[in-house]
Amino acid sequence: MAIKHFSSADINGFADRQRARFINSLSGFKSANLVATIDEQGITNLAMISSVFHIGASPALVGMIIRPTAVQPPAKNTLKKANINDADNKAVPRNTLANIKRTGVYTINHVSADIYQQAHQTSARYDDAISEFDAVGLTETYIDGVAAPFVQQSQLKFSLSVREITPLTINNTILVIGEVSHVLVDNIAVKDDGYIDIESINTAAVSGLDSYHTTTRLSRLSYAKVDRPVQALDI
Amino acid sequence: MAIKHFSSADINGFADRQRARFINSLSGFKSANLVATIDEQGITNLAMISSVFHIGASPALVGMIIRPTAVQPPAKNTLKKANINDADNKAVPRNTLANIKRTGVYTINHVSADIYQQAHQTSARYDDAISEFDAVGLTETYIDGVAAPFVQQSQLKFSLSVREITPLTINNTILVIGEVSHVLVDNIAVKDDGYIDIESINTAAVSGLDSYHTTTRLSRLSYAKVDRPVQALDI
Repeated sequence: MAIKHFSSADINGFADRQRARFINSLSGFKSANLVATIDEQGITNLAMISSVFHIGASPALVGMIIRPTAVQPPAKNTLKKANINDADNKAVPRNTLANIKRTGVYTINHVSADIYQQAHQTSARYDDAISEFDAVGLTETYIDGVAAPFVQQSQLKFSLSVREITPLTINNTILVIGEVSHVLVDNIAVKDDGYIDIESINTAAVSGLDSYHTTTRLSRLSYAKVDRPVQALDI
Repeated sequence: MAIKHFSSADINGFADRQRARFINSLSGFKSANLVATIDEQGITNLAMISSVFHIGASPALVGMIIRPTAVQPPAKNTLKKANINDADNKAVPRNTLANIKRTGVYTINHVSADIYQQAHQTSARYDDAISEFDAVGLTETYIDGVAAPFVQQSQLKFSLSVREITPLTINNTILVIGEVSHVLVDNIAVKDDGYIDIESINTAAVSGLDSYHTTTRLSRLSYAKVDRPVQALDI
């Protein structure tokens, strides 16, 4: 392979969208999720997000990075900047953060290969009065005790109670941490040891800003020990 | 599909490792990376980590969650707790955080299908005097101006200068944010528009605590607009 070396000066010389696509590719494969919320008027909101990540199992905590600037409509003299933000993070949850702050609850819904185009389409700038559920053709479903909607078509989905909303002052993004309250999952995917075979339910992965992927398992591997090689595990 | 509903009471009733595997599966597919550092004595450290995520493109910021408690050898009466932490996050960067604090620099190296077993093996508890590079058979490589080693076998790797180290008091994990300084990548993967085709260089994805996957692209999708359907893009 021919390894190419890009310095920070090279990267700063990229056009804005080129740099956004390049840097968004560096972290590796990302999770593909839809965040669903509801406001006081009962208008639901659905936002594609690729920055959901595990924080801890006990308590069960999940984090996500939200870029809130796109909530404000861009003024004329900030239009270019707004576009850069879009390119940087296509999954702009316009009302997601506001709804989470008001209601304290949200759901995260896996995006499968069956719904990835609809999920991507939620990142268009729909008017506040329009629910992305309706706009893209996905279906709301509810359970007792959780105000926020779930995505019926999602095969693994969970509700969270917000625990911390932390501004990352370094670039004006927001880290939202929630505690898992209910998990709804296709039962065939849940293994006896607790592992959920998300490949078997066609959960997608994301690379860069706009590429969606299915997966093929290499192997599960045994817990690593100093004195023995890793072993492949049965699923 | 038969959707099963797990309440938080159900999940709290799981055995510790079962709960760790279950909760670690919820966020979706995760990035597969090796974090490499060096200490003042020149001893290198290499740690598998599945919590690297994109924070912003301009400046180019990448985050990761580190669980530092495993740095301390467990006292007898905390052994059970230490094991829970291991199960919760197999990728325990024992000396990673200390080295980052001391040197200010680290590298993140994509784990490909070719090296995923070696990458997984770095999470065994090697003695501090042993470099995981040597222990698992991966090769250090260096560039001018970056003290930390890169993994020669990795086809996409980048160095970072640490910008923020933020304790998440909610569960005693640490959010480490770094700014990208140099990127080394197989040039065939870098597309004209900035997108890096990480699938073409066999970058792996992780699910749960221990499952590794390759990917198959569904499609790149056009920037979503309210007034038109999404289109598949050429790679």
